[in-house]
Amino acid sequence: MVNRYLTLLPLDEALTILTSSFERPSGTERISVTSAIGRVVAAPVHAKYSVPEVNLSAMDGIAVKSRDTIGASDTRPVTLTEFARVNTGNIIPPAFDAVIMIEDIWETDGKCQVRKSAVPWQHVRPAGEDMKENKLVLPRGHIIRAFDIGALATFGITSIEVLSVRIGIIPTGSELVPFGVRPGPGQVVESNTVMAQVFLSQMGADCTRYPIVPDDPDRIRETLRTAVRENDLVLISAGSSAGTRDFTESVIRSLGDLIFHGVAVKPGKPVMLGKIDGKPVLGLPGYPLAAQTVLREFAAPLLESWGFPPAPRLAVTVRLGQALVSDLGFDEFIPIFVGRIGQDLLGTPHGKGAFAQMSTVKANGYTHIPAPVEGYEAGTMLEVLLTTDPGSIERTLIFTGTLDPALEDLVNRAHDEGLFIHATNPGNIPGLLALGSNSCHAAPLVLPSRSLLTSYQPLTQFSGAGDLAFIHIASVELGIASINGLETKDLTRVRFINTRKETPSRTVLDALLAIEGIHPSQVNGYLQEVHGPPAVAVAIRNGFADAGICTSSIASANSLRFMPVAHEDYELVVRKEMLADSRFKTLVALIRSTGYRAALEKTGGYDLTLTGTIRGMNGSGTLTPFEPGCLPAGFI
Amino acid sequence: MVNRYLTLLPLDEALTILTSSFERPSGTERISVTSAIGRVVAAPVHAKYSVPEVNLSAMDGIAVKSRDTIGASDTRPVTLTEFARVNTGNIIPPAFDAVIMIEDIWETDGKCQVRKSAVPWQHVRPAGEDMKENKLVLPRGHIIRAFDIGALATFGITSIEVLSVRIGIIPTGSELVPFGVRPGPGQVVESNTVMAQVFLSQMGADCTRYPIVPDDPDRIRETLRTAVRENDLVLISAGSSAGTRDFTESVIRSLGDLIFHGVAVKPGKPVMLGKIDGKPVLGLPGYPLAAQTVLREFAAPLLESWGFPPAPRLAVTVRLGQALVSDLGFDEFIPIFVGRIGQDLLGTPHGKGAFAQMSTVKANGYTHIPAPVEGYEAGTMLEVLLTTDPGSIERTLIFTGTLDPALEDLVNRAHDEGLFIHATNPGNIPGLLALGSNSCHAAPLVLPSRSLLTSYQPLTQFSGAGDLAFIHIASVELGIASINGLETKDLTRVRFINTRKETPSRTVLDALLAIEGIHPSQVNGYLQEVHGPPAVAVAIRNGFADAGICTSSIASANSLRFMPVAHEDYELVVRKEMLADSRFKTLVALIRSTGYRAALEKTGGYDLTLTGTIRGMNGSGTLTPFEPGCLPAGFI
Repeated sequence: MVNRYLTLLPLDEALTILTSSFERPSGTERISVTSAIGRVVAAPVHAKYSVPEVNLSAMDGIAVKSRDTIGASDTRPVTLTEFARVNTGNIIPPAFDAVIMIEDIWETDGKCQVRKSAVPWQHVRPAGEDMKENKLVLPRGHIIRAFDIGALATFGITSIEVLSVRIGIIPTGSELVPFGVRPGPGQVVESNTVMAQVFLSQMGADCTRYPIVPDDPDRIRETLRTAVRENDLVLISAGSSAGTRDFTESVIRSLGDLIFHGVAVKPGKPVMLGKIDGKPVLGLPGYPLAAQTVLREFAAPLLESWGFPPAPRLAVTVRLGQALVSDLGFDEFIPIFVGRIGQDLLGTPHGKGAFAQMSTVKANGYTHIPAPVEGYEAGTMLEVLLTTDPGSIERTLIFTGTLDPALEDLVNRAHDEGLFIHATNPGNIPGLLALGSNSCHAAPLVLPSRSLLTSYQPLTQFSGAGDLAFIHIASVELGIASINGLETKDLTRVRFINTRKETPSRTVLDALLAIEGIHPSQVNGYLQEVHGPPAVAVAIRNGFADAGICTSSIASANSLRFMPVAHEDYELVVRKEMLADSRFKTLVALIRSTGYRAALEKTGGYDLTLTGTIRGMNGSGTLTPFEPGCLPAGFI
Repeated sequence: MVNRYLTLLPLDEALTILTSSFERPSGTERISVTSAIGRVVAAPVHAKYSVPEVNLSAMDGIAVKSRDTIGASDTRPVTLTEFARVNTGNIIPPAFDAVIMIEDIWETDGKCQVRKSAVPWQHVRPAGEDMKENKLVLPRGHIIRAFDIGALATFGITSIEVLSVRIGIIPTGSELVPFGVRPGPGQVVESNTVMAQVFLSQMGADCTRYPIVPDDPDRIRETLRTAVRENDLVLISAGSSAGTRDFTESVIRSLGDLIFHGVAVKPGKPVMLGKIDGKPVLGLPGYPLAAQTVLREFAAPLLESWGFPPAPRLAVTVRLGQALVSDLGFDEFIPIFVGRIGQDLLGTPHGKGAFAQMSTVKANGYTHIPAPVEGYEAGTMLEVLLTTDPGSIERTLIFTGTLDPALEDLVNRAHDEGLFIHATNPGNIPGLLALGSNSCHAAPLVLPSRSLLTSYQPLTQFSGAGDLAFIHIASVELGIASINGLETKDLTRVRFINTRKETPSRTVLDALLAIEGIHPSQVNGYLQEVHGPPAVAVAIRNGFADAGICTSSIASANSLRFMPVAHEDYELVVRKEMLADSRFKTLVALIRSTGYRAALEKTGGYDLTLTGTIRGMNGSGTLTPFEPGCLPAGFI
């Protein structure tokens, strides 16, 4: 692979070049004020008329001509014949220029006596008090909010000139299929330009997505030429990542100037900038997270420099839940999930890979690691920019451990009670570690059935971090999978495939061997570990091994025979004191609800005998005894 | 006026009642993911297919059947005949289940020798690594962001079920004309329901605005009955303010239950809540700021309790620029403008009146004063919720003083340079006070012409607060207005109307009288003060007085004769050190630009002789001398 990026431009230099190399486009459009929310005022907006248009009374009393009252005093009262009775808010007839309060009037025979002269405009809410005709309502550059639109309507403004910018977005790549088409093997849905369109439209841009252009320099050139003619800014997506066939750079060079290709930013390194007919052409990398960085850190600042509103950036300071490594010399942007554990805001980094599109979906913010920083230790205080409502943080429980489909319905039910659950799937041991370091509210774990819990190594090693409670969600059958229906006693004479120590299947195997009096060295393949039960089943199906431990559903999905030997339990493990938290009371009630049980039964494959029961383990690692006989006969 | 509010409900109690008295509506709608931004997921979203759908190689090397490699070692190499060459990212043909890196292969005669067994799935990026078919992408309740839409597109999701709620909005009031119609005298544009529609649509609601219903209980009842049938929530606007004719309460009672009418909140006190056919009916007061409070503090929390996304609430802590009085026992919401002066965020309250619709337009946030608080001293640290991008605060200069149309064009030009100007119009003295207390960046003031500055009382009283600089914007003629063309010497024999001490016209009058040797006591009406030159002109036109001082344009607008005697100067007054601030360098350059001068000339009425010149006043109140002869002959 040719390294195109020997000399990468620093991010700040790239941004200076980007925002200073182009004329600001002059486009505006006139739209109805009812659809103007979030748009930017292009020409100052003036009131169409005064509000109120006529003088109104500010008091209950009489409207008078002020000159008729000159000289009135207690000793020399003046009697008025011309006046009009008014209440607060009434129109003052044009002949009158002042109001005298009801309590300052002595009325007899339809005439009014006053003992004090009235100054012009006294107690008058003058025409134009709220707004004068032709007075400025909104200056150029104002970003329109919902309540501004009320004022615009009040002052007679029905349409408004706002900034507009036309952005052309070109997807390139022979492997792409359009949004809405199911990709064949090796094909990918062209989703980056869909995302770009939504993102940029939100800023007020008028986006045109061009049809997908295959990897053909002539066709890319043709489309780019058209897009530059029709737009103020062109984004050309994919084809700009090293290692794939890349014609974008040469096409830009053939039509104009290449300003930069490759910036010291991750993800997003292959970003490129060209100038064709004086207009910017921004090359968007194909990997989704890289494309996101370029949209947020390049395209958005360019539009901001043209007067478009930035996305609201709400920064919070969080304690980093785990160490974060960053490449020296690169500005890195990392998706972060922010949650509150007790008094602390805790930030958990989400997958750094450019592929992992779910990481920004699962995160609610991101952090910017500057180029000179090599990373941060766990516990560092860090600034995170949120991508969601900060209020949702307070309503969110963090689950770290092993995800099972049984959790999904619980998450949905919790939301209906106003609780958000942020669940990640790093596995049992990271889940227990997170519980130990107070980096999660609960660890959903797949555990060997309760009678084997005391011999489950990751849990016994966890002892000392405080009392734990185990909230049982569901049990699943574990057994020996094979082509021919092998049993425990057969394990000494076949090729076995094992799972890692943190898996319940490993604990179950060890218990089985102990019961049968078999030493692990007698099992051919005991040391051959794969990641989990699904890999075990594939290894057996592919003929790599003859037997292994997995769940009944995985065995049947791989057409293997299955000999049940134990249960594994899916449990929510929490610090004991958390049981007093009202949010966990809600969760336990949901787990015990008939609705949730019915949903699990509908999914199938779950034993719900223990669902909703809670057992404890004290801080020294001793498990409280479980009632006997709560599992079906024949199981450990 | 009957006081309907003897027993007002506290705000928190009202909100508890509001959010707990109604069933959550169950409406959802299916929409394209491209228009789903900001919407709330109603049903869990699952991936349509796995990504990748097939196994891909994670290395350059060969794809093999892992079982063919069993037993391979340095001493017992295995020779493979079945394999496929693959590069990183290539599809692994279905027959193979592992990849061996190129460096671990010894190739001869089209055959490959390997010296290490390959575990199944070794160096394979397995199908479903990014996403597995039917796996959860978005849980119920997730609020959709732009980058989520990229992921949805990638995982084959083109449409999505989102929460929907139908809201009917009924405007009532015989004084109302529809949005887009010019109101006659005493009429008002029906803008509150326009604002309500925009505000609630932004939260994802599907709003129907009904035609304006006049103040007729039968017609209100008919429309309300229809709206309740067609919607999940009904807002009925106006008609609910004490003092106006109010049929809403009785209509609600006739169709269902009135739950509350009157809450201890300002603005918004007349808010009412009814329940008809199990659905909420919210009565929106007619005053715009009161309607805004009810939308933001009642309707929005109700929708939030139904799962709709809240508006982002960004809180900042500000130093209160001036005292803020609040009614004990009322939760008050006050529009606040937040700006940065040096290191401090400064909050300036904007008009508390329910009428003043421009106050929320001019503010960029608001504060909530809890019921038990009577107000805050200037300097109190206060929490403000922002309604604009926080970044704009750093780009905003605060001008406090007297506004003149000459400033408007400057504000627009400044925006084109990336500078926002927040200008308020409390008058000269508050402007100087704000400058003295560091509560504004600059005070735009209408001042007596420079030769009279040393006798301008508000300015001499300001001495001691530091050196000031005066940036001249434009001059305007001041003179004696009258019906018959009076001159200074005539002022002893006619009825005069004066202006207040803070006005330049007062300073000019005093200078004129001194020059002519006239003592103020010789002027009939010297003590009769009105607010400013426009009131002077009206008083003369109405026959209340014979002469006064105003500008030539005000005189001519009132068809008065005008005898010019002096200039008044419109100047930007700043602390001297502010001249070094790059933002003020930009401003001075703009004031001096030919474009700005041309715009002022086009407006007309301005003398631009001194435009852009800067003079100083030192901290002890001594004005630096001005060059003589820079004003036309005959002027002071």
